[in-house]
Amino acid sequence: MNKLGSKLFLIPNLIGDTSPEMVTPAVLPSIVESLKHFIVEDVRNARRYLRKLSKDVIIDDLEFYTLNKHTTQEEISTYLNAAKNGFNIGLISEAGLPCVADPGNVIVEMAHNIGLQVVPITGPSSIFLALMASGLNGQNFAFNGYLPVDQNQRVKKLKELEQKVYKDKQSQIFMDTPYRNNKMFDDIISYLSPNTYLCVAVNVTCEDEFIMTMKIAKWKNNRPDLHKKPCIFII
Amino acid sequence: MNKLGSKLFLIPNLIGDTSPEMVTPAVLPSIVESLKHFIVEDVRNARRYLRKLSKDVIIDDLEFYTLNKHTTQEEISTYLNAAKNGFNIGLISEAGLPCVADPGNVIVEMAHNIGLQVVPITGPSSIFLALMASGLNGQNFAFNGYLPVDQNQRVKKLKELEQKVYKDKQSQIFMDTPYRNNKMFDDIISYLSPNTYLCVAVNVTCEDEFIMTMKIAKWKNNRPDLHKKPCIFII
Repeated sequence: MNKLGSKLFLIPNLIGDTSPEMVTPAVLPSIVESLKHFIVEDVRNARRYLRKLSKDVIIDDLEFYTLNKHTTQEEISTYLNAAKNGFNIGLISEAGLPCVADPGNVIVEMAHNIGLQVVPITGPSSIFLALMASGLNGQNFAFNGYLPVDQNQRVKKLKELEQKVYKDKQSQIFMDTPYRNNKMFDDIISYLSPNTYLCVAVNVTCEDEFIMTMKIAKWKNNRPDLHKKPCIFII
Repeated sequence: MNKLGSKLFLIPNLIGDTSPEMVTPAVLPSIVESLKHFIVEDVRNARRYLRKLSKDVIIDDLEFYTLNKHTTQEEISTYLNAAKNGFNIGLISEAGLPCVADPGNVIVEMAHNIGLQVVPITGPSSIFLALMASGLNGQNFAFNGYLPVDQNQRVKKLKELEQKVYKDKQSQIFMDTPYRNNKMFDDIISYLSPNTYLCVAVNVTCEDEFIMTMKIAKWKNNRPDLHKKPCIFII
């Protein structure tokens, strides 16, 4: 059913200041060396990352197609043209796995529509690494993305998620923009039950990675500073 | 807050017949070479995998602690004793990521309780690779594990999950034991809307990996044989 014969590789990026050897498979440099076309969230970030992955990649020979919130539907519709001409294409997001907590899935959807084979490559995801390391239920879980900014709505949502933890026995994963993390933490410990377990995972895959799960009651006396640090919360 | 100074490494395993270079980070062999204590789902599988990862691992020098459905709570309570004596410990599941769709999280929970640092290592997960490659919503999703065996209950559950796709805009990931996959596929295409998108991801990370997303109406004329093949379904 993959009519085209060419492939769309989903290429993981780093999620912090670490080296590729720590988080991406050994095969990745040879894959990126074979590609000339890349759909990327941010060109500068992608160039820097490709240089880190392999000294044999000649950046000036590559074609980059930018995919972010400013990209129009019309532009997107041309992004897989190279595949129709027999070239393989790489999709790289700004951090972590493409299409998880980022909008790359429009490209993958288009790839399936035109019969292009989609090949996902293993890589780091703060969401999944945090879930593994949380000790919370990994057999039934949901990722809810960013919670509402408005405090009343956020607290309402947190309470809904807490109900699902108990009613559906489903771990609830969520995040916030880094400069709002301390506010989110305060809302969690103020409005959820002291008996609910909370995992806080900060700077995952980096030197100063911090992942800890405790009951909310215990977090109250051990408040970490999460300001501007990438952080995943799981209850 | 990590009082012990020793670490619990969460070590990814392969999820099919592929080589570690394809799916695990280059740093992994040096990590396993540094460990003498492993908590594993299956000892034979773990020995074989460790040998594949590194020729420098002397298997006979290692201590293995088996964690599966036969392990008693009393045995489990002793499994981190080596960490209390200053040793690092590795946790390996039979396939893929420990603690995701497997019960290793009891060990991680215990690690947090005694103040042992938990270090998750990047690796392959059919669930997440399938999600990336599905083209479906990766910004809000739930993993539901195995659906009920009884057909009436399974169909009821499938319909509930389909409602969540539309009502909550949440992708629904689920699986079944490989010999029931064809039955599951039939139920999906018989009982869900022809307009619902279905991703079928088979033998992920292997030579014959097959990942495809189409509307259910289209799957009706393109029925794949899924019998005894590891398979992830996403709607």
